[in-house]
Order: sequence, then C-alpha cells, then structure tokens
Amino acid sequence: MLQLYFSPMACSLASRIALMEAGLDARYHQVHLLTKKVVDDESDFRDLSSKGAVPVLVLENGERLTECAAVLQFIADVNPERDLAPPAGDTDRYRLHEWLSFIGAEIHKAFLFPTFWYKDDGSLAKPRARIAQTLSVPSAHLAGREFLVGNSFTVADAYLTWALLMLRPAGVDIAQWPSLSAYLERMQARPAVREAIATETALRKSVAA
Amino acid sequence: MLQLYFSPMACSLASRIALMEAGLDARYHQVHLLTKKVVDDESDFRDLSSKGAVPVLVLENGERLTECAAVLQFIADVNPERDLAPPAGDTDRYRLHEWLSFIGAEIHKAFLFPTFWYKDDGSLAKPRARIAQTLSVPSAHLAGREFLVGNSFTVADAYLTWALLMLRPAGVDIAQWPSLSAYLERMQARPAVREAIATETALRKSVAA
Ligand SMILES: N[C@@H](CCC(=O)N[C@@H](CS)C(=O)NCC(=O)O)C(=O)O
Ligand SMILES: N[C@@H](CCC(=O)N[C@@H](CS)C(=O)NCC(=O)O)C(=O)O
Repeated sequence: MLQLYFSPMACSLASRIALMEAGLDARYHQVHLLTKKVVDDESDFRDLSSKGAVPVLVLENGERLTECAAVLQFIADVNPERDLAPPAGDTDRYRLHEWLSFIGAEIHKAFLFPTFWYKDDGSLAKPRARIAQTLSVPSAHLAGREFLVGNSFTVADAYLTWALLMLRPAGVDIAQWPSLSAYLERMQARPAVREAIATETALRKSVAA
Repeated sequence: MLQLYFSPMACSLASRIALMEAGLDARYHQVHLLTKKVVDDESDFRDLSSKGAVPVLVLENGERLTECAAVLQFIADVNPERDLAPPAGDTDRYRLHEWLSFIGAEIHKAFLFPTFWYKDDGSLAKPRARIAQTLSVPSAHLAGREFLVGNSFTVADAYLTWALLMLRPAGVDIAQWPSLSAYLERMQARPAVREAIATETALRKSVAA
C-alpha cells in the first residue's frame, strides 16, 4: 500500500486529494513540520527524507518519492482509468508539466512558502507585490474553462485547489479573480476534494501542526 | 523548426543545452527581460507569453510551451534516442520529475530568482539562510554518482548545470560542496554544454541582457 507523509493543510493535501480521486487506499502519516517528528511514533522525519518537507510518498517497494509534481504524477499514473493525468506522449501531458511547475514555483515557492515560513515583512514585500500578476495567469486561463488541462480533473487541479485555499490565510482575497473563485467552488464541490479537506481540517484542529 | 525564446545566461540556458544535447536545430530569439522586448524585431514579448518569462518554446504547430520542466521534457521526448529523459512509465521518469521540481522550486525560485530580481537585503536574508541546506540535497545525491538520474545525462542535469553556474554570481561558492563542483566541471566538459555557455556568454557581452 502507498504511504503518504503529510501535514494538515500543507501542500501534501494535493496528494491526498489525488489519492482519493484515484480511488487508492493509502496509509497516512502525519508529520509535525516544526519539530520534524512523525506524529505516529515520534521518529525523526529527516531520517525518511533529508529535505524535511512534505509530501513524501513511500512506494510499495519502499522507495521514497518527494516533490508535489513527482508525487502527484506517480499517483495519477497508478490508476490511469481515472484520467488524473493525460497519457505520456499526449501534448496535454506537457501542459500538465507546465501547470505543475507554475503552481509549484510561482504560487507555492515564490509566494505561499515565504508567507507561511518566513513571515517577517522584509521577506514578504516583493513576493506580495508580484502575486496579482502571477494569479492573472490561471485566472485568464480558467475564464471559460472548467479544468486546468483538457476537459477533466487532473492532479494539476488538485495542486491549484490547495494553493487557492491557502491564499486566503495568506491574506489574498481571490474574489478579485472571479474565474478563480468560481473554479475553487467547483473543485470544492467534488466529493474527494471535500472529504480530503474535511479530514485535514479536523486533524489541524486536534493536533498542533 | 522549434523556436526558443531565451535571455543570455537566464534559466533558458538549460533549454539551449537540452536542444544541443538532443541534436536538434532550433531558431533562437533573444528577449530583453527588463523591457520585455524581443531583440529581433522589438515586439512585445508579453504578446507571446503573458508570463513575460523565459523559456518559451514555440512548437512546430505554433503552440507555446513555458516553464523549464515542461520545455525540457518536451525537448527530451522529441529525440528519445539521445536518452535525455527516462521513458514514461520507468521509475526513473518520476526521479526526473522530482529533480526538475526541486531545482525549479528550491534552487531557482526560492534562491536564484530573489537574488537576481529582488536584490534588496530584506528579501534575501531568509533565502540565503536556507541555501546551504538546499544544496546539501544534490550534494549528498551526487557523491559517488555521475548524473542526477540513472547513468546518463538527462535534462535535469541541464537544469542543475545552469543553476550551479549561477550560484557564483549569486555569491555562493560551491567549492564548499566538492561533489557539486566536481559535477559542474564534468558537465562543463561536455561539448554541447560548453558550446551553449560560450554562445550565451558572448551574447551577454554584446547586448545588454
Ligand atoms: N518543492 C517542494 C516543496 C515542499 C514544501 O515546501 N513543503 C512544505 C509544506 S507546504 C514543508 O514541508 N515545509 C517544511 C520545511 O521546508 O521545513 C514540493 O513540491 O514538494
Ligand atoms: N517557473 C519558471 C521560471 C522562469 C523564470 O523565472 N525566468 C526568469 C529568467 S531565469 C525570467 O524570465 N524572469 C523575468 C520575469 O520574471 O520578469 C520556469 O520554470 O520557467
């Protein structure tokens, strides 16, 4: 069985959404990101991955895979019938790479990460000044489209859903981009997305993340 | 013919290296990143891509592909005989995704981008404090390995080569990580890498980038 190391409402939420959309059972291990302890057994999370960051997916053969873009694509490809990623060779597979990279670099790493991990104003002024331009890209793309890639839900949507959810606690009101807020509402109406968020919201309340 | 929009010694260098390693002819269009003008014809680069960032690869059918991870994989897959990416379905393809994401998010977007684009000290203190931990990941991985993924040069090596080249002007001396400096030397000994760097160094001198 696949195992996902996660922290409630961290970017690993996208991998949980993907697992649920794929209809895959998995074991979930919560990580405390500040102390780097695995909540199950108090073991050192850095022994599992020297990066000390979620998500980490442990494969059936024991190998460990990190980085949202890699973990999400692995999950999608385990169960191709669910169409969570366009098939290899299809032009849309490169659009998937493009969106996973954009979300991971431009929204997550350039904006959400400094906001939640650096906090001080000096670190945040420049990322904050850029975020409207960054969000104009998916906003324009989603005007008149239901999903980021092709005509169905892919793991890029799982990742963007997480990123958009985090923009509000990061102080960005996505109501400024009606196509983004309508998209987030559509995504949150999906049973798997709703259940993944409900699970992690409850965990976040019960254990200090 | 493929067309690459680039700026000398920007991250688009990795795409040029990939094109050359793939043995593919391409048309190269230089972009002035501050003014967002295409040098050829003074046209507005944002008309080509609203992101206003390099690389942009224009495919044979006129479609435009952005984001290093996507552009690099597209180039690799055009000419599979050169083995610049493990085949789809192979476990190593996910290792490729993992490295492309790590380089794009953790080295490029979290460190090099603020260094060259934000410049002021307030923006740089936190990224600078994290870079040694970030670089310890490829440093440990490359101790005793010749390439990032599998046993041959892939597009992840093209991307890491560019990132390591930029660390010195960013004020980070990679001599602290002997496996990284040995790796960069090995990569720079490859004819395609050497030629790509020589071309862009010359362009950088001749036209303000
Ligand atoms: N590039 C990585 C980023 C992972 C990341 O930044 N994860 C955050 C949570 S959203 C984390 O674990 N931070 C803890 C740390 O960096 O110490 C990916 O795509 O997975
Ligand atoms: N996530 C993008 C990053 C691209 C990027 O940051 N490119 C830089 C040059 S290294 C750029 O064009 N910057 C100009 C700008 O952002 O205005 C990718 O992977 O391609």
